[in-house]
Amino acid sequence: MNPVDFTEHLVVRLPHTDAAGVVFYPKLFEIEQELFERWLEAGGLSVRQMLEGSLAPTPIVHCDGEYLLPVRTGDRMTASLKSVEIGNRSYTLAWEFALEHEVAMRARVKRVATDPAVGASVELPEVLRHWLTDTQARVVRS
Amino acid sequence: MNPVDFTEHLVVRLPHTDAAGVVFYPKLFEIEQELFERWLEAGGLSVRQMLEGSLAPTPIVHCDGEYLLPVRTGDRMTASLKSVEIGNRSYTLAWEFALEHEVAMRARVKRVATDPAVGASVELPEVLRHWLTDTQARVVRS
Amino acid sequence: MNPVDFTEHLVVRLPHTDAAGVVFYPKLFEIEQELFERWLEAGGLSVRQMLEGSLAPTPIVHCDGEYLLPVRTGDRMTASLKSVEIGNRSYTLAWEFALEHEVAMRARVKRVATDPAVGASVELPEVLRHWLTDTQARVVRS
Amino acid sequence: MNPVDFTEHLVVRLPHTDAAGVVFYPKLFEIEQELFERWLEAGGLSVRQMLEGSLAPTPIVHCDGEYLLPVRTGDRMTASLKSVEIGNRSYTLAWEFALEHEVAMRARVKRVATDPAVGASVELPEVLRHWLTDTQARVVRS
Repeated sequence: MNPVDFTEHLVVRLPHTDAAGVVFYPKLFEIEQELFERWLEAGGLSVRQMLEGSLAPTPIVHCDGEYLLPVRTGDRMTASLKSVEIGNRSYTLAWEFALEHEVAMRARVKRVATDPAVGASVELPEVLRHWLTDTQARVVRS
Repeated sequence: MNPVDFTEHLVVRLPHTDAAGVVFYPKLFEIEQELFERWLEAGGLSVRQMLEGSLAPTPIVHCDGEYLLPVRTGDRMTASLKSVEIGNRSYTLAWEFALEHEVAMRARVKRVATDPAVGASVELPEVLRHWLTDTQARVVRS
Repeated sequence: MNPVDFTEHLVVRLPHTDAAGVVFYPKLFEIEQELFERWLEAGGLSVRQMLEGSLAPTPIVHCDGEYLLPVRTGDRMTASLKSVEIGNRSYTLAWEFALEHEVAMRARVKRVATDPAVGASVELPEVLRHWLTDTQARVVRS
Repeated sequence: MNPVDFTEHLVVRLPHTDAAGVVFYPKLFEIEQELFERWLEAGGLSVRQMLEGSLAPTPIVHCDGEYLLPVRTGDRMTASLKSVEIGNRSYTLAWEFALEHEVAMRARVKRVATDPAVGASVELPEVLRHWLTDTQARVVRS
C-alpha cells in the first residue's frame, strides 16, 4: 500500500466472482478487510494486536457498498482511501475502486472500539486515533 | 422459507465466522443472497432463469449492513423480510436477523433489472413486479 | 439431516459458484463443514462445545475432493455420508454429492482430536467415539 | 511471484480464519487459486483467456490439502511450487506453505483441459504445455 495516498493495485481473481461472471457483491467487503489490515500495518498496528488484546478491537457496526460497473476476473483495479471520519469511539473509512479512471465500486465501513470483556464501546485507543488523524491529513492533501 | 411472512430459521456455522469469534461482516450478504434466492423460488422464479436469460438479471447496485450484537457459531437466528420497495427498474429488500427477540443484524440490498446484452437498466419484468407487489402486501400485514 | 442414513438435500446457490459458471472448488469443503456440523448436532454434539472447551476440538489435518460433473446454480444435490473411519485420535468422514443419481463430487476429511492448551493430539472423547461408532453402523446398513 | 522458483510471500488475513482462531481449511484452496492465476500470468496466460474461449479451460478434477501447523491472522507464509506433473490432458501443481522454515500446509490440485462446448477432456493446449514444461524445469533446479 502506497503510504502517501493509500492507494493499491488489485487484480480481480476467480474467487471474487460468481456465475453471473462479475464480482459477487459481498466480496467487496472481503477486499475492504484486507485493505483495512494493510492500512493498519502501514501505521504500525495490526488486527493481530486486536485479537491478542494489546489493542482494543474495533468490530464493524455499519457498512455500505455501491456497485457502478461490472468487474470481471482479471480486471485490474486501483483502490484508494477517499475519506476518514473520526469519532470519539468510532471511525469510518471510505474506499473507491476504479477501473481505468472510472469508479467501479465504493465501500464505506464504520468500526467501533470495544472492550471485549464488557462488550461495550470505549474511546479510540490513542495510537489508533493518532494514525487516523495522520491518515486523514494525507487523504485530504492527495 | 415461510411463505406467509418470509421468515426463516438459520444456524450460524463456522464458515460464517472469523478469528474474532463472531460473524465475519461480509457473510451477512452471503446469507442475504441465499435468502433472496429462496424468496425468488417461493414466487416461482429463480437466479437460474436470470443466468440462462429467460428472466432479466437484477445485479446489486447498493447494499448496507448493520451489526448490533455479536453473533457466534451455533447461534440460532430468525431472519425476516421487513420491507420491500419497488421502483420502475429497481427493488430493495430489507432483512432483519434476530437472536431470541433482539435484532442482531440488518441487511438492505437494492437490485436493478438489466439487459446484459446492452449493459443498461430495464423495467422490472412483469412476473418479478407481480411477486414483489404480492410480497409487499404480505410483509405489511405481518 | 436424515438421521437414519445421513443424507441431506442441498440447493447450489450463486455464492457457491465462480465466473466459470460452476461450483468454485473450495466451496465443496464449506459445504462439508456445514454437513459436519449438522452431523455433530444429530448426535447431541456441536462445534460450539469444541470452541467453548467442553469437547476436544478436532481440527482438519487432511482433506481431498473429487469433481466429476459440473454443478451449477440451482442444481439440487443429495449429499450422503458414505463411510466413517475411526482411529484412536482421529476420524475421517467421506461424503458423496449426487445430481439425479450420478455422483458429481466427493469430499473426504480427516480430523484429529486436540488439546488446544498443549497443541498436541489426544484420544477421541468418549461421546464423540460413541457417536462415530453409532454413525458407522448406520452407514454400513444403509 | 518470483519467476525463478515460483515462491511468494503471503500474509494471513482475518477473512482466511474462523472462530477457532486459525485458517478455515477450504481457504487453503482459495489461496491456491490465486497462486495458480499468478503462475499462469507469469507465463503470459490467464484465467480470463480460459473464460473468454481463447485458451481451453482447465477445471479442477481433484485436490487435496494437508494441515500440519495452526496458521493465524497476521502470520507471514512463504508459498512455493514444489512439483509439476504433466499428463496428456491434465496437470497437477503441488504447493507448500511455510511459517519460518517449517511446512504448515500443503495443497495439490489436478486440472484437466476441457472443451466446454462438448464437456469432454482435450489435449493440453500447446502454450500451456510449454509453460508447464518450462516451470517443471525451474522447479527441479530450485
